[in-house]
Amino acid sequence: MSKPTLFTLFSPRLLDIYDVSNSIVVIIDVFRATSTIATALYNGAIKIIPVDNVAKCIEIGNATPNSITAGERDGKIIEGLAHGNSPAEYSRNFIEGKTLVLTTTNGTKLLHMALKNGADEVITGSFPNLSAVCDHLIAAKKNVILGCSAWKDRINIEDTLFAGAVIHYIKAYFTIHCDSSLIAEQMYLLHKDDMKSFIRLTTHWHRLAAYGLEKDLEYCVTADVANVLPIFNNDALVIL
Amino acid sequence: MSKPTLFTLFSPRLLDIYDVSNSIVVIIDVFRATSTIATALYNGAIKIIPVDNVAKCIEIGNATPNSITAGERDGKIIEGLAHGNSPAEYSRNFIEGKTLVLTTTNGTKLLHMALKNGADEVITGSFPNLSAVCDHLIAAKKNVILGCSAWKDRINIEDTLFAGAVIHYIKAYFTIHCDSSLIAEQMYLLHKDDMKSFIRLTTHWHRLAAYGLEKDLEYCVTADVANVLPIFNNDALVIL
Repeated sequence: MSKPTLFTLFSPRLLDIYDVSNSIVVIIDVFRATSTIATALYNGAIKIIPVDNVAKCIEIGNATPNSITAGERDGKIIEGLAHGNSPAEYSRNFIEGKTLVLTTTNGTKLLHMALKNGADEVITGSFPNLSAVCDHLIAAKKNVILGCSAWKDRINIEDTLFAGAVIHYIKAYFTIHCDSSLIAEQMYLLHKDDMKSFIRLTTHWHRLAAYGLEKDLEYCVTADVANVLPIFNNDALVIL
Repeated sequence: MSKPTLFTLFSPRLLDIYDVSNSIVVIIDVFRATSTIATALYNGAIKIIPVDNVAKCIEIGNATPNSITAGERDGKIIEGLAHGNSPAEYSRNFIEGKTLVLTTTNGTKLLHMALKNGADEVITGSFPNLSAVCDHLIAAKKNVILGCSAWKDRINIEDTLFAGAVIHYIKAYFTIHCDSSLIAEQMYLLHKDDMKSFIRLTTHWHRLAAYGLEKDLEYCVTADVANVLPIFNNDALVIL
């Protein structure tokens, strides 16, 4: 039996090139949407409703009992929303039993693009849930597209490194004819042992460190600290 | 005085993100358009007219004395054109004193996109003219966009490696806040000493090697064997 295929897209702008309709699409937004999604679900959130604009975030928040609206644009909490996009905000004490309505600059945008293009299944990936993602993709035996959310369509290193980590652990189970995947895996292997220092070289580090978020960013490149699998089902991300 | 900026784009799809109007855009299509362009000019071609479709290639060829029409789609010579896209075809004996009218799958497409978006200056780069490109960019003291032509918008490694080589040699002269540039340089440093074996892992190698083009591809990653600077001026690429 032939193996399923795996492709990596480094920017949402490249999504149209790939056939998502027969694929599991893994939404990757390491700094910080998908790290926060894994963390909130791990800490007991009932579900996370990802929305692509602020007005809808407030509207759904108002209509949903026991919910929290959250979101950021350009790394800052949006006016009118209660919380931001830091995984540190979503401790078990705070989020257990609640619904999180979330809008972010890049990750929720790519998620909605993948749904609109008819993705067979949408899950979210980040270092905090690396193993859960790998285990699921190996078990599912379907084609995979690793979708880096990037920063306003510009390629970023942290999402590339996570794609590379996934590829490194699951490549034996897939047919991979994709230079982006080769680049991602090589970048991961080059930096897996110096991740916390290497990410200090990225453009996003400089953007977010200005807001005092160094601890947040280090958490976001730590493997398996919130090891659940968020899957999109009925308009929300829930634990599979 | 602040240094000029440098950005790398890994796919033509990302061109709109960057402001090309104040930049020198370096068109990179290592396999094989820009390697062929450098080689033909180095071997005495008067000029190269890059066109984006076959009909126009034939029309301009018919209207231009002492010209040769050439082009490929998907690695093969196009029906109706006289020659292909292999640098090996353009020896001094053959091309000296002639005008080459050229259309290719990716490189000439990105070149026309850059012109349409109002690029301040367009040059072409490839390993055969690596030093000429670096020397020019250092001397020009303008903003730079390294434009990888990719393969039908999919990111490829060979163009990435060339961008990385340029960055490695000129980075001291530029302000670089661009993760793509960081990735490109790291990939180049990782493989600069095993280029001829590494490119055998790329998707493009497998595509073109099927046509018996291994020697061509090895030539295309050899530095400074056709070390001239092609610059776009009055509808054609000429030596600066």
